Amino acid sequence: MKPFHIFSHCSLASSSSNPRLNSSYPNDTLQMSVENVVYIGSKPIMNYCLAVLTSLKDGSSVALKARGRAISTAVDVAEVTKNRFMENLIVENVEIGTEELESEGRMRNVSTITIVLKKQ
Amino acid sequence: MKPFHIFSHCSLASSSSNPRLNSSYPNDTLQMSVENVVYIGSKPIMNYCLAVLTSLKDGSSVALKARGRAISTAVDVAEVTKNRFMENLIVENVEIGTEELESEGRMRNVSTITIVLKKQ
Repeated sequence: MKPFHIFSHCSLASSSSNPRLNSSYPNDTLQMSVENVVYIGSKPIMNYCLAVLTSLKDGSSVALKARGRAISTAVDVAEVTKNRFMENLIVENVEIGTEELESEGRMRNVSTITIVLKKQ
Repeated sequence: MKPFHIFSHCSLASSSSNPRLNSSYPNDTLQMSVENVVYIGSKPIMNYCLAVLTSLKDGSSVALKARGRAISTAVDVAEVTKNRFMENLIVENVEIGTEELESEGRMRNVSTITIVLKKQ
């Protein structure tokens, strides 16, 4: 799959290309079944909704991943996509977790969320 | 159970006392099994962690509920309580949804999250 060029901060990658984020999956079954990942940041919600819709053209499921303050944006993206753009979409799984990040020379814990959306 | 007096905005209620929020549960089984609800707002995270810990003294599970920007705080509260204060705690269920709220005379959709924590 070609990378996204329209949104500079809206990365869309096959799940096999990012081993760090894949390690947060509890088992290999889930990892194998999710084809694409959309990383949520601070861009407008609609940018990410479009990324999710484009990603679902090729595959049947997509994982939204966010950290820190972007967690609420990830929930907005999932709900807006499901309710407004794609009625046959279901929330297959939601997982929360913690990641250690280095910030200003020391380690900080940051919360994460992974929302798996699937076409019915 | 007596209501919380220490946190003015940190309400803790038995799940039977709030029919509106209970209606977001998909089935009665989950509703019956969760004894207490902690509503997450804009107070410091530690206030809500203390509310969760106090609530878990009496019961075996607690639901964290949040809307909008408070969603990321709810994930922080769940993760901090689990990792720092109570190691035998598990995230039993995470649900996301949408609620309609009236704001400035018109209806707005707002995202919600419900995180159910359970003692092992």
